[in-house]
Amino acid sequence: MLSALGLARAIEDGEITPAHALDLCADAIARRESDVGAFVTLDLEAARKAVERPGAKDTPLRGLPVALKDIFDTADMPTEYGSTIYAGYRPKYDASLVALIRRAGGTLLGKTVTTEFAHLDPGKTRNPVNLAHTPGGSSSGSAAGVAAGFFPIATGSQTGGSVIRPASFCGVAGFKPSYRLLPTGGMKCVSWHLDTAGLFAASVADVAFAAAAIGDRDLRVDGSKPSSPRIGVLREQPWAPASEDMVATLDNVARAASAGMARVRDIKLPPVMASAFRAHAVIQAYEAARSLASEYERSGDRLAKGVRELVETGFATGADAYDDARRTSSQARRALSDLMADVDVILSPSAPGAAPKGLGSTGSSTFNRLWTLMGTPCVNVPGLADPSGMPLGMQVIGRFGSDRATLEAALFVETVIARKG
Amino acid sequence: MLSALGLARAIEDGEITPAHALDLCADAIARRESDVGAFVTLDLEAARKAVERPGAKDTPLRGLPVALKDIFDTADMPTEYGSTIYAGYRPKYDASLVALIRRAGGTLLGKTVTTEFAHLDPGKTRNPVNLAHTPGGSSSGSAAGVAAGFFPIATGSQTGGSVIRPASFCGVAGFKPSYRLLPTGGMKCVSWHLDTAGLFAASVADVAFAAAAIGDRDLRVDGSKPSSPRIGVLREQPWAPASEDMVATLDNVARAASAGMARVRDIKLPPVMASAFRAHAVIQAYEAARSLASEYERSGDRLAKGVRELVETGFATGADAYDDARRTSSQARRALSDLMADVDVILSPSAPGAAPKGLGSTGSSTFNRLWTLMGTPCVNVPGLADPSGMPLGMQVIGRFGSDRATLEAALFVETVIARKG
Repeated sequence: MLSALGLARAIEDGEITPAHALDLCADAIARRESDVGAFVTLDLEAARKAVERPGAKDTPLRGLPVALKDIFDTADMPTEYGSTIYAGYRPKYDASLVALIRRAGGTLLGKTVTTEFAHLDPGKTRNPVNLAHTPGGSSSGSAAGVAAGFFPIATGSQTGGSVIRPASFCGVAGFKPSYRLLPTGGMKCVSWHLDTAGLFAASVADVAFAAAAIGDRDLRVDGSKPSSPRIGVLREQPWAPASEDMVATLDNVARAASAGMARVRDIKLPPVMASAFRAHAVIQAYEAARSLASEYERSGDRLAKGVRELVETGFATGADAYDDARRTSSQARRALSDLMADVDVILSPSAPGAAPKGLGSTGSSTFNRLWTLMGTPCVNVPGLADPSGMPLGMQVIGRFGSDRATLEAALFVETVIARKG
Repeated sequence: MLSALGLARAIEDGEITPAHALDLCADAIARRESDVGAFVTLDLEAARKAVERPGAKDTPLRGLPVALKDIFDTADMPTEYGSTIYAGYRPKYDASLVALIRRAGGTLLGKTVTTEFAHLDPGKTRNPVNLAHTPGGSSSGSAAGVAAGFFPIATGSQTGGSVIRPASFCGVAGFKPSYRLLPTGGMKCVSWHLDTAGLFAASVADVAFAAAAIGDRDLRVDGSKPSSPRIGVLREQPWAPASEDMVATLDNVARAASAGMARVRDIKLPPVMASAFRAHAVIQAYEAARSLASEYERSGDRLAKGVRELVETGFATGADAYDDARRTSSQARRALSDLMADVDVILSPSAPGAAPKGLGSTGSSTFNRLWTLMGTPCVNVPGLADPSGMPLGMQVIGRFGSDRATLEAALFVETVIARKG
């Protein structure tokens, strides 16, 4: 994998040029893209021209190639949202997040595979760790591409579990910030209460660096000594059993964290969280139906089955059920605030287990949906694997708005994992 | 003006056909559009074809012409957001709200004038009550078109005061629902914490009918006997003086409401509200800069002065100032919840006074910004005028999520105004 921080420092120190950084990407892509299938659009030539152009020298992402999930509008590349009904669509301007990446000096490399409208129907991407396994979704190409060393930074989005799950499956760092910390304008809207823009990079410090640069916020955790966070270990979500490997791994990480001076204790979710988990599905369907109403009315027969079913479920959901789900969500947020009164972060698996075999499904988002609904920052910490070598991600969940503290705690977890391994 | 409810009932009873309803619009447009300038795109022919097509008979808006503020994407008509940099732009699909209007059976008549990106720089529209006066903004064409009888229903959006102010200036009913009650997907994003989709119609019952039909929610207030709400009269917003006429009018309405059996008392805003009013500007600029970053970077020299300044102010605003403003907003919401513990709605002027003379400015949103930030439902109640005949609107502000109760209270206020007049 390519470390965003490592490349940035090497460029700053004059050890490599932006053109060389791009070559590293191009080499990895040449070797493995035909197997992995991370891109829907790849424009190395435009990226080469961009890095050769004399640009602002003091931008934080100067010379760093960035790939964009094809759910973000781009003026210079097609934007298809993973759907044939948008084939060849070219927006007039870039999405907000894309414009901010440009402002930060990033070099746009291409668009990555998304499931259709960031829902469940898989694209062509394979898991670089084992090509027979799904990379997860919906940000499939972004996670797989970072894992394959195609680019050091990529954007993603999460409505259910679309950042944390593929990061876990591919063994990279994924960051779903607090709800709307990163702007979603020009990101195809599916569910306005859930859609959250996020990022992928090689490690926790890399993804924090990228978020700091793009969001122009104090989020970097490199250089800071990992503090010893108060960690609540969530061994059980009643609605989502984890694999034996995942349960054992969580146990090991909790023990290592405790040995590493973190204050670790087990926590249990109050019953309202199970209602909130169910409320997520109601809110997602209700809003997706309204968000994709035009696509459904005009081109419904060309939509993927999963998207069509989501819209139909949503239109069959009345305002009363939706309002109930919203109220449940508010109650759960208050309960979560109580639950986290004396822990800084919650530690849970990022997914039920390793990436499932096969490409017919992107796996389950049962470990992510509640946290998307809560709007809390989540980080997938990479570095662990099952006996077959498939990655197992640890999810660090922070308080709403405490993104930096969450990233610091994730860095701590990553460090104890590395020490152990 | 054309009453949406009146037309809907007449069509249902077979008194008029949808084609006839469209003729009423076409006649008014032929008489006055050259003076008023409500439309950027008018497609009467497409509308005629649509009403002649045999459609679903039981849709609530069947046969009712609807105009769309040109901030909402449309697949069948250009969408320019009031900006030359989007000249001729044609989205691939409709905005969510547009698709919902179609589903509800509405006939799309055209796109109405908006200020550039729904900010301050005026378009061509004039106030139908007096052509020498501004119609207000940013939903200028929608408010003016309802006032001129061009259409019974129009969409708008409010980030500062862009629904309630033009409704007040033009003497029509305007409804800014609770934040995100109506979907904003495919509505050009300027400020993601503030942008709110809204509606215009002739009267409170008409706008409630339209909102109920489009939102598929129990919001209709026609037929329900006006209840006697508990009204808090807000005679003073420290940052926004009202004209003498407006102050006297508020006083008269409060007295009439009291005589009409409402429980009326004066309320005062706690000091945090003044901070929240200032926070609105910080949030709006910070988010607008990020939302319009691509337009600014690629086409900044072709943007209107007001938009350019907004973006530049926003990029000069750091994350700390923005986060402070968000915290102030949260504090103000809690304070508002306390303030409204024993009133159902707040009654305040909709604007500092009547529509100012001249077309160089769309007037002031100082009476609206706080409520946009609070996300509360607001209704402009029409029916009053200053001695020169220019409309003076009364603003009924409800609790977040209590949209129906707010519309009922607005109906009450409208009724006591009508009795008085």
